[in-house]
Amino acid sequence: MKPFRVVGVIGKRREPNIELLREVCATLRRLGCDVLIEDNAAFGSSELATRVDRDQLAQRCELIVVVGGDGTLLDAGRTLAATHKPLLGINQGRLGFMVDVPPESMHEGLAAVIGGDYVTEERLLLSASVERGGSRDGGTRLAVNDVVIRNQATIRMIEFETWLDREFISNHRADGMIIASPTGSTAYALSGGGPLLHPSLSAIALVPICPHTLSDRPIVVDGQRPIRIVIRGVDRAQAMVTFDGQTSETLEPGDVVEVSRAAHPLSLIHPVGYSYFRILRDKLRWGSGPSSAHERV
Amino acid sequence: MKPFRVVGVIGKRREPNIELLREVCATLRRLGCDVLIEDNAAFGSSELATRVDRDQLAQRCELIVVVGGDGTLLDAGRTLAATHKPLLGINQGRLGFMVDVPPESMHEGLAAVIGGDYVTEERLLLSASVERGGSRDGGTRLAVNDVVIRNQATIRMIEFETWLDREFISNHRADGMIIASPTGSTAYALSGGGPLLHPSLSAIALVPICPHTLSDRPIVVDGQRPIRIVIRGVDRAQAMVTFDGQTSETLEPGDVVEVSRAAHPLSLIHPVGYSYFRILRDKLRWGSGPSSAHERV
Amino acid sequence: MKPFRVVGVIGKRREPNIELLREVCATLRRLGCDVLIEDNAAFGSSELATRVDRDQLAQRCELIVVVGGDGTLLDAGRTLAATHKPLLGINQGRLGFMVDVPPESMHEGLAAVIGGDYVTEERLLLSASVERGGSRDGGTRLAVNDVVIRNQATIRMIEFETWLDREFISNHRADGMIIASPTGSTAYALSGGGPLLHPSLSAIALVPICPHTLSDRPIVVDGQRPIRIVIRGVDRAQAMVTFDGQTSETLEPGDVVEVSRAAHPLSLIHPVGYSYFRILRDKLRWGSGPSSAHERV
Amino acid sequence: MKPFRVVGVIGKRREPNIELLREVCATLRRLGCDVLIEDNAAFGSSELATRVDRDQLAQRCELIVVVGGDGTLLDAGRTLAATHKPLLGINQGRLGFMVDVPPESMHEGLAAVIGGDYVTEERLLLSASVERGGSRDGGTRLAVNDVVIRNQATIRMIEFETWLDREFISNHRADGMIIASPTGSTAYALSGGGPLLHPSLSAIALVPICPHTLSDRPIVVDGQRPIRIVIRGVDRAQAMVTFDGQTSETLEPGDVVEVSRAAHPLSLIHPVGYSYFRILRDKLRWGSGPSSAHERV
Repeated sequence: MKPFRVVGVIGKRREPNIELLREVCATLRRLGCDVLIEDNAAFGSSELATRVDRDQLAQRCELIVVVGGDGTLLDAGRTLAATHKPLLGINQGRLGFMVDVPPESMHEGLAAVIGGDYVTEERLLLSASVERGGSRDGGTRLAVNDVVIRNQATIRMIEFETWLDREFISNHRADGMIIASPTGSTAYALSGGGPLLHPSLSAIALVPICPHTLSDRPIVVDGQRPIRIVIRGVDRAQAMVTFDGQTSETLEPGDVVEVSRAAHPLSLIHPVGYSYFRILRDKLRWGSGPSSAHERV
Repeated sequence: MKPFRVVGVIGKRREPNIELLREVCATLRRLGCDVLIEDNAAFGSSELATRVDRDQLAQRCELIVVVGGDGTLLDAGRTLAATHKPLLGINQGRLGFMVDVPPESMHEGLAAVIGGDYVTEERLLLSASVERGGSRDGGTRLAVNDVVIRNQATIRMIEFETWLDREFISNHRADGMIIASPTGSTAYALSGGGPLLHPSLSAIALVPICPHTLSDRPIVVDGQRPIRIVIRGVDRAQAMVTFDGQTSETLEPGDVVEVSRAAHPLSLIHPVGYSYFRILRDKLRWGSGPSSAHERV
Repeated sequence: MKPFRVVGVIGKRREPNIELLREVCATLRRLGCDVLIEDNAAFGSSELATRVDRDQLAQRCELIVVVGGDGTLLDAGRTLAATHKPLLGINQGRLGFMVDVPPESMHEGLAAVIGGDYVTEERLLLSASVERGGSRDGGTRLAVNDVVIRNQATIRMIEFETWLDREFISNHRADGMIIASPTGSTAYALSGGGPLLHPSLSAIALVPICPHTLSDRPIVVDGQRPIRIVIRGVDRAQAMVTFDGQTSETLEPGDVVEVSRAAHPLSLIHPVGYSYFRILRDKLRWGSGPSSAHERV
Repeated sequence: MKPFRVVGVIGKRREPNIELLREVCATLRRLGCDVLIEDNAAFGSSELATRVDRDQLAQRCELIVVVGGDGTLLDAGRTLAATHKPLLGINQGRLGFMVDVPPESMHEGLAAVIGGDYVTEERLLLSASVERGGSRDGGTRLAVNDVVIRNQATIRMIEFETWLDREFISNHRADGMIIASPTGSTAYALSGGGPLLHPSLSAIALVPICPHTLSDRPIVVDGQRPIRIVIRGVDRAQAMVTFDGQTSETLEPGDVVEVSRAAHPLSLIHPVGYSYFRILRDKLRWGSGPSSAHERV
């Protein structure tokens, strides 16, 4: 694969691990890279990396190394997806679903990746808009994991309709609905009873949250046609839509939330030998490995 | 779409509705079709249709009309899939997921379809083989709905491994595993806690049956790589593999069941206006229709 | 059973069915009862019933007839439980779990019940208090269905501990927790994945809402020992506690919500022939009746 | 509590840990007990314990120490329940739900218990009978965990009715039904989607296995009235009833399986400090302990 020369580094917004960030920068420098780091007061000035804002960083670098937890990568993925720059995640603390390089193997991992020895994985991104009174003033939002419509009030369910473009799916009375990408299928959607979707799938899961009708089960659709959620009565409830659990907006009866597969995917970079299922086994505590001799990765 | 001229008719193997079959044949004749009917003692000789065996029928006709329940269509789909002839389902009794033309609108439905006014839907088929001691003597089996591996003994679970080609997924201790196509996602897999998969998805669901590990949840994969189930210890249990709940074989420790997306899909013919979700709402008793004015189909 | 002579009538707070209320009062008068009706502007003055406030009504009557939906009965049950007066529910609209006398059989139902031909069913009530900084200023709240602790913010889960008196149960990261009586087991708890608890059980269900840990499953305890929920970090979330989905309070980290079986149950009156399971079959759309000849009720 | 003097010891039927059994016997002897051990060829003759058959052992001893896994204790509990002798479980290998004394703390555990320092826990037992053609020739069977009715054939579901004594509950089309005690609620019933029932509950869970109707959810009843399962058509399926997953019988259409709470409970002995929830946390991998200072046990 293509080696990288200009590399951006992004840390956690809150409580970044400065020492680890410095080590990442130093390693990249030793590997011959130009290193840009997102402006962060805590990092201080340094000869290790040039401090730039996130936009500058995304424009100039060929690879973005994200140091933190899955939330850090979600945030970077959502805000930088439009630049199509690939992301590599180094976890600060425990293994994440996406920040899959542990600090202790960071040196070898970076050396291999910078030298061109890596695999690229494309992850479906969600593109969402909110239509109110016929117009979509808010523009398009992206989400890596999920778009969640949920009742925020203490009482009552919300009522809404689901559509696959112009084909009616169903009416729902529920706490809400999770619209998840394959990446998001291991997050909130899993807690809500949704299935695991392999990241190679071009599919979107609709997972109702605490639905009133017991046969109102998760549905997986192909993402070719937009999903439309029409908010109906909310009684004394209050509906909100949230993107990746990080930003949100209030909804009103009649609002339509439309969610599609984004035109471009998110590119994740992994060291060679990466296995999605190995991470799944670890995170879901599925227990021991295979007893037979089939495993290659 | 292309009109049809030579049409085959298949009824239920057990308790066919002879009167309905005759009516279907008569309608097809009035529409100018040559009609072939699968040999069936109960049907009797008739000027309405030429009696042939299933192989002959599949070879000679351009469209196969299946009259019965979903089980009849599953059986026809599995045995005739290799011929790539499209199927149209007329239900005898209550609405099915696939036999979606009710007897009362059969005349209009057939007239429209024979005249070329229809939609074609391609459904993913499963292709399976069993490897024992390194060889696959049994050849390939097809399934429209699901390949089910399940413990048949009264006691004990079975143990098995799942693989996505050469990538290890997990170990399982469970009553079994359902490997379902999107078509099968509304059948046994749904009872086992699996998600609904829209038929347009090229995806396969792995749904563990009563798994010992609570985080052993349904996984949806893309069907590009074969799924491999390796039978491990069965203690005093006895493992079987079943295709569409209709034919089955005994498994032994060490056996490998491999399931892939078949090279060719199953073609279903529907009258124009067909809506998958309308059938789903009816079958799952999802209640009332949309209150808003979005619905087109 | 003991016949009734002084009967109170309570309607829906919002959109009461005045005509049905008048009919209920007239029927009770014809049966020789003194009738009290809760003050309600819409009802108007009438010779059919004496208008009193809810406290007066509860003090003076021997039986309270609630006309409305399950929500109306929940509200009456919670506010009047301390008086130990039995409730009879007449549904206005569709069958409820507790308002089980339909308007069309209201005359016969009331005649039988007033004459002493009825069954009494005792339903466990929940008694809850909130402890903050060591004190419980808010006193005790009752709930017929459930006490729900839930995150109201759009983002993040809440963290809390569960205890059975002084025995630690577990830590939870979830959207919240439903603590349900058997009566409440058919309500929100069912949507959250909880079991149905027969009303004769002296038991309380703890049903986590969208828990992060997949093995965090519903637990049923006996209600002898108080259940204690200790709110831990709520990050940027906001926890609330809600009683029967009708009244609620904000919670802070460190707050302890304690829920016990109330000292006295709620008494429901049913016409003879009442079957809990018949209502369940109807409400959950379980389909057809028994084919064998065992059924008595 | 009362100290014990005559103690019986039972090991695993298959692959007993002879060394551990000898150590248990030696410890009991040092504590001044008379020790009886169930006849087991592998154990050999020994001055440590008198070899007797299980009936003799149950008659003569005051306490039965079971050394093995939960299966060993289930078997001992079921076969010895009629004698009302208390059981203490020592696990051979990993912690069990009932064999809760680990080998490494076996010496202290036994010393305390034999000396009278223990807690007794009573566990509900299930009593079952099969009625065929009006008679119950087979007598009564006991079960500690569960009575399971399940389809053993590869194809088709079974159909059956559930009754609470003479009150009809529902019709079911499913793979089967698990009728579980609180003790059994952590076993097969949990895999089937049932709730956890605290052992102090006098309750029985009915958990349908892969039910066709999605609203066919687990129900918990109080065990006062017998549960009756009436087998209806089994088509080409074959129904079996199994007790604790250890013994089983074939069922025919028309057969009625009746399950009640047994007249006497099973007595389990635990060292002081025993916590049911601690075992649950460990077995279900619920993660870390409480951060607050409430825990006493």
